[in-house]
Amino acid sequence: MSFAALWESLLPVGRDGGTGGYRRFSWTPADAECRRWFFTTAEKRGLRAGTDRNGNLWAWWDPPRIADPGAARPGAVVTGSHLDSVPDGGAYDGPLGVVTAFAAIDLLRERGQVPVRALGVAAFCEEEGARFGVACLGSRLLAGAIEPDRARELRDRDGTTFAAAMTAAGQDPAAIGPDPDLIAGIAAYVELHIEQGRALADLDAAIGVAERIWPHGRWRLAFTGRADHAGTTRLGDRRDPMLACAAAILAARGAATQEGALATVGKVSAEPGAVNAISSSVTAWLDARAPDASRLNGVVERVLAQARAAATAQGVGLDASQESVTPAVDFDAALRDRLVATLAGAGIRAPVLPTGAGHDAGVLAAQVPAGMLFVRNPTGVSHSPAEHAEPGDCATGVTALAAVLADLACRD
Amino acid sequence: MSFAALWESLLPVGRDGGTGGYRRFSWTPADAECRRWFFTTAEKRGLRAGTDRNGNLWAWWDPPRIADPGAARPGAVVTGSHLDSVPDGGAYDGPLGVVTAFAAIDLLRERGQVPVRALGVAAFCEEEGARFGVACLGSRLLAGAIEPDRARELRDRDGTTFAAAMTAAGQDPAAIGPDPDLIAGIAAYVELHIEQGRALADLDAAIGVAERIWPHGRWRLAFTGRADHAGTTRLGDRRDPMLACAAAILAARGAATQEGALATVGKVSAEPGAVNAISSSVTAWLDARAPDASRLNGVVERVLAQARAAATAQGVGLDASQESVTPAVDFDAALRDRLVATLAGAGIRAPVLPTGAGHDAGVLAAQVPAGMLFVRNPTGVSHSPAEHAEPGDCATGVTALAAVLADLACRD
Repeated sequence: MSFAALWESLLPVGRDGGTGGYRRFSWTPADAECRRWFFTTAEKRGLRAGTDRNGNLWAWWDPPRIADPGAARPGAVVTGSHLDSVPDGGAYDGPLGVVTAFAAIDLLRERGQVPVRALGVAAFCEEEGARFGVACLGSRLLAGAIEPDRARELRDRDGTTFAAAMTAAGQDPAAIGPDPDLIAGIAAYVELHIEQGRALADLDAAIGVAERIWPHGRWRLAFTGRADHAGTTRLGDRRDPMLACAAAILAARGAATQEGALATVGKVSAEPGAVNAISSSVTAWLDARAPDASRLNGVVERVLAQARAAATAQGVGLDASQESVTPAVDFDAALRDRLVATLAGAGIRAPVLPTGAGHDAGVLAAQVPAGMLFVRNPTGVSHSPAEHAEPGDCATGVTALAAVLADLACRD
Repeated sequence: MSFAALWESLLPVGRDGGTGGYRRFSWTPADAECRRWFFTTAEKRGLRAGTDRNGNLWAWWDPPRIADPGAARPGAVVTGSHLDSVPDGGAYDGPLGVVTAFAAIDLLRERGQVPVRALGVAAFCEEEGARFGVACLGSRLLAGAIEPDRARELRDRDGTTFAAAMTAAGQDPAAIGPDPDLIAGIAAYVELHIEQGRALADLDAAIGVAERIWPHGRWRLAFTGRADHAGTTRLGDRRDPMLACAAAILAARGAATQEGALATVGKVSAEPGAVNAISSSVTAWLDARAPDASRLNGVVERVLAQARAAATAQGVGLDASQESVTPAVDFDAALRDRLVATLAGAGIRAPVLPTGAGHDAGVLAAQVPAGMLFVRNPTGVSHSPAEHAEPGDCATGVTALAAVLADLACRD
């Protein structure tokens, strides 16, 4: 099956009729449809597919039976990405890595190449953290990078827990947690992903190889004031948390500029949220990323200091908490060099790039040699319906991934 | 029935178990329960109750049949308020005026006083505008102060129209609109309301009489930028509407200070609302009030100028629209003086106060002699679960309202 046909088969799932953006949130009907697509696609290829205890999907191309059953079974090679989206996200972020994985397997078969070790396609659960607030939740659980109890109690904006949503989707939340056997069986994980900036476009290259992921994290800033009538409460009598929150939002941009980093507030929630009521509380979520841990700390400390000063000035409280922090990830240097060399051998020039975006490959890198391929994004736009990669570049991505899998999985 | 018992009978309806605040939104189950309470309360008193074409509730104590059916029927006297609440609102704002109305009727009957003209209790629909965004919607429709087509198309945050919500609640939205006959039959409307500031507390008075309502309005500021990945988009490449919105929020406070007015942003909505995505759009609602129209315009113009400048600086668009504006309302001077005199005759000192809050009485004042009584609010806190009036002051409110109704409705 061509990449294009495979791509088209997933495209309508979870797409908003109005914006064209995606709302593929974990354990929702759109997510269930994505999972069905994954199983159907695997089944058509005779792959052995299933869901692990953490809700991650796996499709395995098992190597022909090894003649000597007593021989050591070589470690598996896994590729993949995720199928969930941010709210109103694009079509490529995640799905491109899963679709190219299946298409690369098709290409290997067309060429008569057969793996000598297990070759897996993975689609990780809740990578975006769009529903339950913790990014890469499925791979974190698998790798033991988050406590199962904490994961079970994560809540979506309606108050539904991850455990309850998982149960409603027919899976047992009591079973979530690290799976050291599965991890131990993986010799390499390579994730293909659309680039989320314009570096490859600037470098005139279709494909890149990841060097490292910037350290990044999320902080929750909850400002608590006092609900009051907007039409009758004198300015001097107010304790309005919205004003302190606004100051913190502006402080985030200033701090990022000063530290040569990135800081964003993309989610704000005001209670009670009435036009004619002073808010009782306003919560803002800070997303911060920086080239190194010191500059990341610098950003967060600057924002918190200014948020505290604004809270004090308005007579409101501030409860700041770290929701997640992911340290810098340097991808396995040997694997990275091997990816570059393999691609060069296939005639594909692939510059090495850092990235500010977190990925399941970054989580797994702590326990498994991991690497990433990026596909050029001509506008750099991501997490938006306008996210786009050219069909030619996607096809090059399939070629590149097939070359990598042939090298890693089809040679003794 | 005592005021306390009547008050207790309404208290549990629509109350949040966690905060103790109220969520009595139009055409919801909590609203239906409020309506049933109104009808039960009216029925127990032998009042003729019904819902008008705009969803407002009425309970009539008809005068004994006039001997000469051909005689002119004197104009009705109406009291009341509303039963809906802001999100997580207090128990008093609205319901106090409806409960004291029924309690005042009980008191008149205990004293053997009988109306010589129709005496009505009204509970107006969607006074807070908490669900559909336009305050005093029921009284505006009744008085012809909003186009029925516009009202039908108002949407709640889930996208449900006022028309659809009304239909689901069993009422016909095609029938909404002005009711000149009903209006023409009303000789006076007096609304009792909890004070939403601390003026009466400062003046050591249990009851006040409204002088005027400040001009006030709501503006919607929609900032449109470009959704992008928070972890990969360079600061200089961003078009982040959250930053412009934050600047506008701070500008509102500054403008209100400069104009001696009030300005509040209590509701903000960011799309797509993901922690790791730059917003595609952020909308803030500005509530502004001032002693006069010139200062109100001054506030709004200052805010819009700064919002536009911030939008330009961030490369985002701004669509500012006026959602509602209510000009200053001077309550009927003759009625106001009569209220003060009647209360003085009943031994109740009632200072005359301006207010920044809108009320159905303010809407009706354009077509009917209207007035308001305020009951002391010791903390001034309003639109909050902490809103409170002392039982003794509520009892004085019943006495005051009964004296006013006896004067207006029980004397030829």
